[in-house]
Amino acid sequence: MKKIAVIYHSGHGHTAHLAQHVVQGAASVAGSAVDLLRAEDLRSQPEALSAYDGLILGSPTYLGGVSGTFKHFMDATGGLWRRQQLVGKLAAGFTVSSLPAGDKQSTLLSLFVFCMQHGMMWVGNPFLPGQHQGVPYDEAVNRLGSWSGLMAQAAHGAPAEAFSPGDLRSAEVFGRNFSEQLQRMSA
Amino acid sequence: MKKIAVIYHSGHGHTAHLAQHVVQGAASVAGSAVDLLRAEDLRSQPEALSAYDGLILGSPTYLGGVSGTFKHFMDATGGLWRRQQLVGKLAAGFTVSSLPAGDKQSTLLSLFVFCMQHGMMWVGNPFLPGQHQGVPYDEAVNRLGSWSGLMAQAAHGAPAEAFSPGDLRSAEVFGRNFSEQLQRMSA
Amino acid sequence: MKKIAVIYHSGHGHTAHLAQHVVQGAASVAGSAVDLLRAEDLRSQPEALSAYDGLILGSPTYLGGVSGTFKHFMDATGGLWRRQQLVGKLAAGFTVSSLPAGDKQSTLLSLFVFCMQHGMMWVGNPFLPGQHQGVPYDEAVNRLGSWSGLMAQAAHGAPAEAFSPGDLRSAEVFGRNFSEQLQRMSA
Amino acid sequence: MKKIAVIYHSGHGHTAHLAQHVVQGAASVAGSAVDLLRAEDLRSQPEALSAYDGLILGSPTYLGGVSGTFKHFMDATGGLWRRQQLVGKLAAGFTVSSLPAGDKQSTLLSLFVFCMQHGMMWVGNPFLPGQHQGVPYDEAVNRLGSWSGLMAQAAHGAPAEAFSPGDLRSAEVFGRNFSEQLQRMSA
Repeated sequence: MKKIAVIYHSGHGHTAHLAQHVVQGAASVAGSAVDLLRAEDLRSQPEALSAYDGLILGSPTYLGGVSGTFKHFMDATGGLWRRQQLVGKLAAGFTVSSLPAGDKQSTLLSLFVFCMQHGMMWVGNPFLPGQHQGVPYDEAVNRLGSWSGLMAQAAHGAPAEAFSPGDLRSAEVFGRNFSEQLQRMSA
Repeated sequence: MKKIAVIYHSGHGHTAHLAQHVVQGAASVAGSAVDLLRAEDLRSQPEALSAYDGLILGSPTYLGGVSGTFKHFMDATGGLWRRQQLVGKLAAGFTVSSLPAGDKQSTLLSLFVFCMQHGMMWVGNPFLPGQHQGVPYDEAVNRLGSWSGLMAQAAHGAPAEAFSPGDLRSAEVFGRNFSEQLQRMSA
Repeated sequence: MKKIAVIYHSGHGHTAHLAQHVVQGAASVAGSAVDLLRAEDLRSQPEALSAYDGLILGSPTYLGGVSGTFKHFMDATGGLWRRQQLVGKLAAGFTVSSLPAGDKQSTLLSLFVFCMQHGMMWVGNPFLPGQHQGVPYDEAVNRLGSWSGLMAQAAHGAPAEAFSPGDLRSAEVFGRNFSEQLQRMSA
Repeated sequence: MKKIAVIYHSGHGHTAHLAQHVVQGAASVAGSAVDLLRAEDLRSQPEALSAYDGLILGSPTYLGGVSGTFKHFMDATGGLWRRQQLVGKLAAGFTVSSLPAGDKQSTLLSLFVFCMQHGMMWVGNPFLPGQHQGVPYDEAVNRLGSWSGLMAQAAHGAPAEAFSPGDLRSAEVFGRNFSEQLQRMSA
């Protein structure tokens, strides 16, 4: 059994909603057990992460980067870094903001650099945009065009579940692919 | 009079078309003279750039970065770097790809790092997305949400001029703002 | 008179010490007044920043990015963003970590993207590394080789003032250049 | 048997020399066969890459990014992208410049974004800097402090083999670790 943690912070519920779809995708693969964890809860006990084989990190994009709350969680992993306890695990990232591009790529790059510091390996979002195969834009997987990780778009003030069908489907295939890649790896 | 060069490479005409709208915006400001230059022509005579007060760099995004042709031009400026001939000039960047996000931010960051190496200053794309003020998405300025530089979207195989009205208007206000900021600066 | 704020967070005093040298450089230019501000103090009153013409941001690099404390300050500027109160100001960034490269460039890129979101202009660290002109490595300006902003190196557990002479001199010329560039700009 | 390609461009021999040490490390793992390929040779036949299980990309850092020659090779993989022929392979990157930091991280991020576009997975440089364990700086593994990929330093005009012992050892452990991680992955 491979253990996966999906770790997120959500200011207004959008990233939490997306995280649930990532979990659903990851858990759909036989042999994977998935926990959904809040970044603010992990801050006081980051060592819990050493029990997992794979980590998926999700944060809203606030002014071009992860949220302050999420960065505080990241900083709390300094002891894990010193003891090299996350080395060799698999990692991935996702983020949400209100615009199509919206400087979400810089958030994903921040998550990537953090996971590299920990010696983890990275899996992105390896899907051709669905609209290139004729799927309507709102329903297409990877419709925004992001490969370093998963991007989704949610309007300010919109209900937490108000994502396009394409973004929710993207979250599921992203989570499922992460799980599948993790299954390819022996300890 | 402030002299501005808009330097671009275009594989299929889209970036060239956008560059013309950037030129139009930049030239609309009194006291600015704007030249449109092809990156491949500058490769053999990069020292021509030392005559300008401001440089606006434009490349398509190919697989997450500037085009090889544009990078060859960038590499040809090594002599200007050694002689520090671009220090203190103003710079900006723009890029085109076929998807809303499409890893265009990493292209803009590459252009930024290059201009920093040359000791230039950078002006981005300081416009609130128009759709937040009720403008229809296709007509909105900065509709994709990019601040580090200008982004525009053009479909593969589409005619070179097939941009949304919002992207073309974005190019014009981006060029005009660059010119206005340059006018604020004394030599 | 041009007003400059140097805004920093410091976990163990190193970034605070470097910030003082940045202030010293910036204040050495006639017509510039410089305030040294703590990020954690600004979090409750970010609107104080609207009174400045230029902002210099400094954070330690923690696991490849700004500190959580600094990011919380950055997030607190959301109201300034909505009201576009920092547009057109000049910005720059600096960071400290314990290794020569140490993923400090990703921290500087994060600060850059943030300032772009606010519509500010950016000035980097436009200095040829002094060791290329025969200055001993420890005493050389820009000895680490960073142009997007200022980098300095401080060992874990070392006293707060234990920087190489080159890094302290780099901080001063970086601050002075920022001030000089700001003087070039009319309101 | 796992097949690995180390693909490089070298302007003056330094990156070629480092690439040989990466190859040596990668080939030291049982069950791995390693080919050393020149980017300029692959440009006309990029489809050769589809035969490999893992790709390690190496370029000098020229003005903050990969060389123009290396980018031309990258652009030549567009057909592989459309046919999704590199999806699921393992990738890593390395770069050389003349300064300790030297904007090498932006080069590594460019290589990462490119490999993500191709749907590959990424392994970094997961080694604690040796000087933290008392190894002399010049002999220490990961002495510059880079985790997203391998960095090495070579002075302009120095002989191609004039790397510090630490950088050469870093290249070997980086190559070996890549090979080991690839062995962990089933097809």
